[in-house]
Amino acid sequence: MSQLLTLHHLEYSQSFRVLWMLEELGTPYELIVYERDAKTRAAPDEYKAISPLGTAPVLTEGEMALAESSAIMEHILDITPNHTLRPEPGAPDRIRYLFWWHAAQGSMMPLQLMITVLNLSQKQLPFFMKPFIKLYVAGLTRLFMEPRLNRLMEQAEVDLETAPWFGGERLSVADFLIAYNMIVGAERGMINERQHPNCMKWIARMKALPSFARATEKDGRASMALNY
Amino acid sequence: MSQLLTLHHLEYSQSFRVLWMLEELGTPYELIVYERDAKTRAAPDEYKAISPLGTAPVLTEGEMALAESSAIMEHILDITPNHTLRPEPGAPDRIRYLFWWHAAQGSMMPLQLMITVLNLSQKQLPFFMKPFIKLYVAGLTRLFMEPRLNRLMEQAEVDLETAPWFGGERLSVADFLIAYNMIVGAERGMINERQHPNCMKWIARMKALPSFARATEKDGRASMALNY
Repeated sequence: MSQLLTLHHLEYSQSFRVLWMLEELGTPYELIVYERDAKTRAAPDEYKAISPLGTAPVLTEGEMALAESSAIMEHILDITPNHTLRPEPGAPDRIRYLFWWHAAQGSMMPLQLMITVLNLSQKQLPFFMKPFIKLYVAGLTRLFMEPRLNRLMEQAEVDLETAPWFGGERLSVADFLIAYNMIVGAERGMINERQHPNCMKWIARMKALPSFARATEKDGRASMALNY
Repeated sequence: MSQLLTLHHLEYSQSFRVLWMLEELGTPYELIVYERDAKTRAAPDEYKAISPLGTAPVLTEGEMALAESSAIMEHILDITPNHTLRPEPGAPDRIRYLFWWHAAQGSMMPLQLMITVLNLSQKQLPFFMKPFIKLYVAGLTRLFMEPRLNRLMEQAEVDLETAPWFGGERLSVADFLIAYNMIVGAERGMINERQHPNCMKWIARMKALPSFARATEKDGRASMALNY
């Protein structure tokens, strides 16, 4: 485990959260930033070539290339001594931590991904199809994605009322993972001051961490996600 | 932690994998099986009432109700002594285990969910919309979901060539989590003998575990997922 970590960071992507957590931990790493294709907004071929799944983020360590945000973040925690970002089995906040750590990728991200993909894909359609697809996507969003996202957000409001972080009393890796979902959700109006005051306060707490300023400077972009 | 675990198992749902893992571990638990609505196929209201997100699975332990497959499975491992289902930090297979443990829910499930939801939703459409939506869903599946699922499956084929389980040399919780994705994928033709011989052999190994027969008997259904 003595090899240097290299984070391959694709601009406007989920790899921002890994960058941010690395800055919080102070774990030594090398950063390479990749730009998206100016026209298609896809990752460049050199990025797809190093990524086992063709997706961001990717972490390399010598010959090893690891994809999947949560796996990368757990591996970084495994090799970083003396951190407090992962409540251990038996810790008082362990169950709450486990729920949000897994719900971020297992429940919230799939619903947000569906909304993003269904909206972006409409731009490529022939004109005669557009009105039908728009109607279909709106109906699906209202009947499937929104009710499920709403229940998640209601649970987040309840939990953030009783303790300041998603993992409970202490900042944890769950906060860095879900930060992407929440901040992008707020930028797109899914999360707002009126319905989600506790989530908005949590976003403000997260953005006040010195690690956010450092990560933002290294990222060099005004936002962590593509806007559409 | 001395309270009895209760698994609230919804028929034809992701809770099958929790049931299966509990049978493998031999952890004491109580099982309650819920039937879906005969017409809508939705979970019954009594199930939605106990589930924090309205989704399956749910595990209760005294006053505590926990949702999200991965969180439930980690909690069960936390309180079960002397198991070998979760490679510890530093173990030789730890990184491979982390990748598949997280990729199952973080990458594979969202793509499979999109395919399922986009296909099921077409049944409810007015007749004049159906041809357009069918064309749109087919295009999106071909351009977005299939290439990403193919890369995952290619990686699975490579990894299962070098070691028998998703987490490497030993059976792990990653196998029980991804079993739902893989077995349902095989039932729907996404995974097949010609393109995915190693995955099909892995499915056979999983189904040969005595815990599979016990879980199937308690479940009482011919399949773990709804067919459409």
